[in-house]
Amino acid sequence: MTTVQQVVLARRPNGVLQPEHFSLKATDLPALKEGQFLIRNLFLSLDAGFRQWMNAGASDNYLSEMPLDTPVQSIVLGEVTESLHSDYPIGSLVVGRTAWETHSIADGSDLMTIIQPNENFGPEHYLSALGPSGMTAYFGLMNIGQPKPGDTLLVSAAAGGVGSLVGQIGKILGCRTIGISSSEEKCQWLQSELGYDHVINYKASPGLDQALAEMAPNGVDIYFDNVGGHMLDTTLKHIALNARIILCGAISQYDLTGQHIGIHHLWELVTKRAKAEGFMFSDYVEEYSAAMEVLGHWITAEQLHAPVNITHGLASTAEAFCQMLTGNNLGKSLVKLC
Amino acid sequence: MTTVQQVVLARRPNGVLQPEHFSLKATDLPALKEGQFLIRNLFLSLDAGFRQWMNAGASDNYLSEMPLDTPVQSIVLGEVTESLHSDYPIGSLVVGRTAWETHSIADGSDLMTIIQPNENFGPEHYLSALGPSGMTAYFGLMNIGQPKPGDTLLVSAAAGGVGSLVGQIGKILGCRTIGISSSEEKCQWLQSELGYDHVINYKASPGLDQALAEMAPNGVDIYFDNVGGHMLDTTLKHIALNARIILCGAISQYDLTGQHIGIHHLWELVTKRAKAEGFMFSDYVEEYSAAMEVLGHWITAEQLHAPVNITHGLASTAEAFCQMLTGNNLGKSLVKLC
Repeated sequence: MTTVQQVVLARRPNGVLQPEHFSLKATDLPALKEGQFLIRNLFLSLDAGFRQWMNAGASDNYLSEMPLDTPVQSIVLGEVTESLHSDYPIGSLVVGRTAWETHSIADGSDLMTIIQPNENFGPEHYLSALGPSGMTAYFGLMNIGQPKPGDTLLVSAAAGGVGSLVGQIGKILGCRTIGISSSEEKCQWLQSELGYDHVINYKASPGLDQALAEMAPNGVDIYFDNVGGHMLDTTLKHIALNARIILCGAISQYDLTGQHIGIHHLWELVTKRAKAEGFMFSDYVEEYSAAMEVLGHWITAEQLHAPVNITHGLASTAEAFCQMLTGNNLGKSLVKLC
Repeated sequence: MTTVQQVVLARRPNGVLQPEHFSLKATDLPALKEGQFLIRNLFLSLDAGFRQWMNAGASDNYLSEMPLDTPVQSIVLGEVTESLHSDYPIGSLVVGRTAWETHSIADGSDLMTIIQPNENFGPEHYLSALGPSGMTAYFGLMNIGQPKPGDTLLVSAAAGGVGSLVGQIGKILGCRTIGISSSEEKCQWLQSELGYDHVINYKASPGLDQALAEMAPNGVDIYFDNVGGHMLDTTLKHIALNARIILCGAISQYDLTGQHIGIHHLWELVTKRAKAEGFMFSDYVEEYSAAMEVLGHWITAEQLHAPVNITHGLASTAEAFCQMLTGNNLGKSLVKLC
């Protein structure tokens, strides 16, 4: 019998999420059934989007409200150590959606895919540029943003797991990139490490509205929105003709206990003949391998960096997740378990 | 010398637009210059979208704030009676953007096009189904809405100049149509005259939210939005996977003195992988003739009705426009001058 260590949602958040909302728990796993396999988890992926399903009543096309006292759902990377599923033999490296736990039982559903080892990439790549964050950045930017050389591409949460990739991909494709972040330190990193053409510390003077007027006098052609709320509303005032707004995340809104704040400038979509479109990386599962080939090529050519921010040990997970939600990270946040 | 009667914006509205904001004025037109021609206006098109440029500070890609004491800008249909422009000979029937006035001097810019007489259509068709309203309905629905047979198509201001066409076109293309309007009388007309499958009087019980839950239990695939504001916000809660929201107008917002009201449910675009997109009919000028051929075919086949609501005489214009903004019309509102 395998005893698994888990991080469970112990208390329902009612506002700002804190590490105290979680607790550690040890559970004995049941024996595998036919069609199941056991994963020893190596890395947990910390994704802001999962925050919303911790709220009371959260429910949408993807997931329902996470129940209390059960392990927190998460994308993980691990190794198959026992198997009663012929497609997932022992030794397979897999990525999929299980939970914050040292071991998971899976059956091949929930976005589960096998990773083919490649000497050019470390396992962490498969949770960053070659994993869900990379797919999110790539398909959002390519399919909705439709970048063209010379386009002005604005990215919010530009230092985050997705944003840190979007700006680089845009730059490779010839866009003029502007990254929004929340500190001078992160802004410097965006320029020095990720090659952003311009950066905006939205917490500093002159503020986002004035900064956009100065840096995008002809308007923003593509806005990759990870933040929502006031930042989206302000950006709408600065979009260019035929702008594309990629609605990816709304990290500013997940801690709200009521509805999201109102967006007042949607009319700009009419006067600018522009669009706002939402998506999820999992919509493009059949195109993953093509995207991974492109992204992998850029990584090996050293055109694309896949910055990761790794904390160690399951016990660090809750705090690392909460820290990430406050923007205290450079690149993709991961927890390394082994 | 030609003396022209004009309706001018006499006072700047600061809230609900009233006939008292306008006044009649007589002006002597100057002599034509080379490249100009004189139009005797036959019909004025009343379009809600022009309301916004009457507000102080209104300015966007199309027009600027309408100045006081000058004739109100408008789409018109008229006959060329004098010409110093070889492309617009005397006797030509033209549609273009001039103003609320009995005669206009034009130079071929401002959306000016010549109408080829066709015995199947009256001049009013060229300001309704075969004019800007028809182009708006057609290109918005076809290019953004991308209707498929079986799609649930929701139309707001469904009895208005654009909405009255959108529902019929959707029906021809096999959509299940739901029209929103503001009275039982208009709702009955939507069903009996325009063939809407379902209607919602949003002012009556059970209200829009509950009515949509009942009439579109699988969600709205296409929402053609002429109203904006709370109606848009409520509809977002009911969109289907991959929904397309056509942002055409926001008639509920034009009388506001401050910014538009906040939209709280944009996040639905993410969970439903949906889009909201704005447009203007004038973006598609090169495709007008193709669209007019299709629409004309539907009219002559009696599949498409082009209902018009005609008032008579320039002096009726201001009141007719204000009445239209309150939804007191069935079909396209026109003023007949001759």
